Amino acid sequence: MSLAPPSAALLARLADRLGPAGFTQDPAALAPWLTDWRRRMTGAAAALVAPATLDEAAFVVAAAAEARVALVPQGGNSSMVGGATPPADGPGALLVSLRRMQRIRAVSPEDNAITAEAGVVLADLHEAAAAHGRRFPLSLAAKGNATVGGLISTNAGGTQVLRFGPMRALVLGLEGVFGNGLRLEQLTPLRKDNRGYDLKQLLIGAEGTLGLVTAATLRLVPAFRARAVAWIGLDDAGAALTLLRRLEDRLGEAVESFELIPEEGLALVLRHIPGTQAPLAGAHRWHVLIEAVGDAAVAPALEAALAAEAERGGLADAVLAQNERQAEALWRLRESLSEAEARDGLAAKHDIAVPVAAMPGFIETASAAVAARFAGARPIAFGHLGDGNVHFNVRAPRDADDRAWFAREAAAVSRFVHGLVLDAGGTLSAEHGIGRFKRDDFAALGEPDRLAGLRAVKQLFDPAGILNPGALLPLAEPAPAP
Amino acid sequence: MSLAPPSAALLARLADRLGPAGFTQDPAALAPWLTDWRRRMTGAAAALVAPATLDEAAFVVAAAAEARVALVPQGGNSSMVGGATPPADGPGALLVSLRRMQRIRAVSPEDNAITAEAGVVLADLHEAAAAHGRRFPLSLAAKGNATVGGLISTNAGGTQVLRFGPMRALVLGLEGVFGNGLRLEQLTPLRKDNRGYDLKQLLIGAEGTLGLVTAATLRLVPAFRARAVAWIGLDDAGAALTLLRRLEDRLGEAVESFELIPEEGLALVLRHIPGTQAPLAGAHRWHVLIEAVGDAAVAPALEAALAAEAERGGLADAVLAQNERQAEALWRLRESLSEAEARDGLAAKHDIAVPVAAMPGFIETASAAVAARFAGARPIAFGHLGDGNVHFNVRAPRDADDRAWFAREAAAVSRFVHGLVLDAGGTLSAEHGIGRFKRDDFAALGEPDRLAGLRAVKQLFDPAGILNPGALLPLAEPAPAP
Repeated sequence: MSLAPPSAALLARLADRLGPAGFTQDPAALAPWLTDWRRRMTGAAAALVAPATLDEAAFVVAAAAEARVALVPQGGNSSMVGGATPPADGPGALLVSLRRMQRIRAVSPEDNAITAEAGVVLADLHEAAAAHGRRFPLSLAAKGNATVGGLISTNAGGTQVLRFGPMRALVLGLEGVFGNGLRLEQLTPLRKDNRGYDLKQLLIGAEGTLGLVTAATLRLVPAFRARAVAWIGLDDAGAALTLLRRLEDRLGEAVESFELIPEEGLALVLRHIPGTQAPLAGAHRWHVLIEAVGDAAVAPALEAALAAEAERGGLADAVLAQNERQAEALWRLRESLSEAEARDGLAAKHDIAVPVAAMPGFIETASAAVAARFAGARPIAFGHLGDGNVHFNVRAPRDADDRAWFAREAAAVSRFVHGLVLDAGGTLSAEHGIGRFKRDDFAALGEPDRLAGLRAVKQLFDPAGILNPGALLPLAEPAPAP
Repeated sequence: MSLAPPSAALLARLADRLGPAGFTQDPAALAPWLTDWRRRMTGAAAALVAPATLDEAAFVVAAAAEARVALVPQGGNSSMVGGATPPADGPGALLVSLRRMQRIRAVSPEDNAITAEAGVVLADLHEAAAAHGRRFPLSLAAKGNATVGGLISTNAGGTQVLRFGPMRALVLGLEGVFGNGLRLEQLTPLRKDNRGYDLKQLLIGAEGTLGLVTAATLRLVPAFRARAVAWIGLDDAGAALTLLRRLEDRLGEAVESFELIPEEGLALVLRHIPGTQAPLAGAHRWHVLIEAVGDAAVAPALEAALAAEAERGGLADAVLAQNERQAEALWRLRESLSEAEARDGLAAKHDIAVPVAAMPGFIETASAAVAARFAGARPIAFGHLGDGNVHFNVRAPRDADDRAWFAREAAAVSRFVHGLVLDAGGTLSAEHGIGRFKRDDFAALGEPDRLAGLRAVKQLFDPAGILNPGALLPLAEPAPAP
């Protein structure tokens, strides 16, 4: 069952079927897609193949399965976990780009649905919906690169999960092909459909290890008339959660984003990102960025709710954006956090979730445990508190050489953090997936039944084991726990 | 691979493990559970087994798989499609009741989550949530019988899907056991968890054919402060859809229910259900029941929106309930429709969906096609227009003997209606499932790839074929299409 290098005959077959627009071995054309988004690995591929239709995608899968050649599917190459980068060693792989499939096939405002091919970039999807008075309610920092197919294959999250759920909640229909040749052609925007097992759910979040997604029908919602954006200063993370629940009581589902930022995170942004400035006058241990959407009444409603909370002692300070420019400046502080952190030095990154109510406490205890175990290491937690999901990153001690520290300690730090979160009933992948970077921790720390279930499904739908090998699941059984 | 009758040894093993509270062969104790909800079939079972824990459920599955004995899982026995009734013939089955598992294990208002065992009845779930200032936003007419396990296994819908989605959208975590022995123990209420294929999705809507659901963690939402219920008279179904979209524009997601009722349906209720009265003075071809929820502002907002629509000519007449008693009276008209129809005579029932925007047109053309093909047959369509889902039922010609007509024509009528809906890209099961009553139509009319995918998953998770045989998928391959 081992994989084989792509033969000249296979490459010729693919080149013939896909044509010059769909097949290249030009190293210059391949190069931009062989290094992962975080620039942590550079792989190799014998060719880049780019199907333009479901039929072509099915042809690629069938030909590769017959020849036992690895396929690494790729959308916008914005994976945070090395999910779309072929390995540098091994028998050689084909990079399967879905970026040629970039048509919006249909928009139906009456059905609140849009049918888009896998290669449509998220920002373009937003525009296509907006042109029909609708919006697609999922957004994230990589929206200029991330594609529909990649978002589905990673069950992407972002800043609006609190209200609308992750990608899985927005997929009404799917078109694609599994590794065993089974086609899924279910793009009709049905709101209810109970015809047995919902196979499309298996392709959602599969990280390209079961098949190729070629198109999807996605849920739209009415465009909003107005948004209100506020920045809050708080003394502790627990108070942030109380604030969220009280705002939800007053404003209902209008609260779409509720992002937690620690004082140190804000300081990093102000230090490294030009043109940013502190939103509040004083210093606060924690900050929260809130976005509520609705009509003209939403800003006064948010303002009144925040005033009531201030009165009650539920927050230390707050500012409401007075116009779109101010709103964008507040969002820029949040969205620059990863970049500011990267400019400051290397960090071991963890995309974790625990139950929402447990997160403030988890941040405290996990930060203390990490600092105790890895002397001087500096944890920093920020992100989607309303979803129980923070990015819990650990930077080198203040005066350490961060590259040397990272090389020496990062794997141990991550294993330790992932162990803490699993002990708390949480997940070591909230929204980024497992990919290649978390695979070993997942294999070592995951419950045996969970891993056995995933392997059984993998074996059924990708019996040749050609789809994105090395991502999500290790090829070999994990070593038994000590 | 054929199934076997339960041996005395197997029955003794089960009796020993489950104890007297979990095992009975008493015909009187079995009898109430052997006839389906619609009283269309009565089956047979050698015993009723009732596990009280996941371990006991896993024991039952393993013992039955080893002995190749059929298990028919059952919750509240309120399936509309014979999904939980064992066959009368065949080698004999065990009825697996999950009703002993009726504990609410945890309620966390902070996490907006509740963990309930499979046998908890929906009405009790509602109460448990309400006791913590929350609500579980799924309801349906059978709420006094339907159980959590059954609602999950059928991916139930109901009257709030428009806003909150079906059961699938409300399941945060699941506990259960597949037919191959694999356990799922994932009850932590994580809002985001991307650790590969989401296996719980396979048990949702599986109709008990892949395994047993023993408990679930479900999403709660804040309790609402007030609701506004209105009844509208309209000239055509297309105007109803326009009205819905315009109300959504004005009221956002406050619109939770939008139920379509034809003039003839209302007449049936007024004729057969004591104490009901017409909500509007005049006659209208179509009626709509609307519920919007929120705070004290919701009733004035709905009233203003309806007044604006009346002004625009978008509706013929409307009445807003002035108090809870009136609101309940309006809901009773809607919820009595099935009962009124049953009292009026037999009908071939179809639970269908097409894209929302296509439904008004589909009702027109399908009604005409049925009437043309089956002389005098009287179609009636009502239900969840906002979801693109109506119950499209066909009654006998006015002066026909409805039993004789039903016996002679119902299967042909259903095959014809199901063909029409599939030709329109729709589904022959929107929310009720396939069960035993729709299995043959599904097998004959379903796309071969869809059926092949379901069979492959069935084979993987229930290799002995013991789980709810005869429901959802036929045991034998369907005959090739002519």
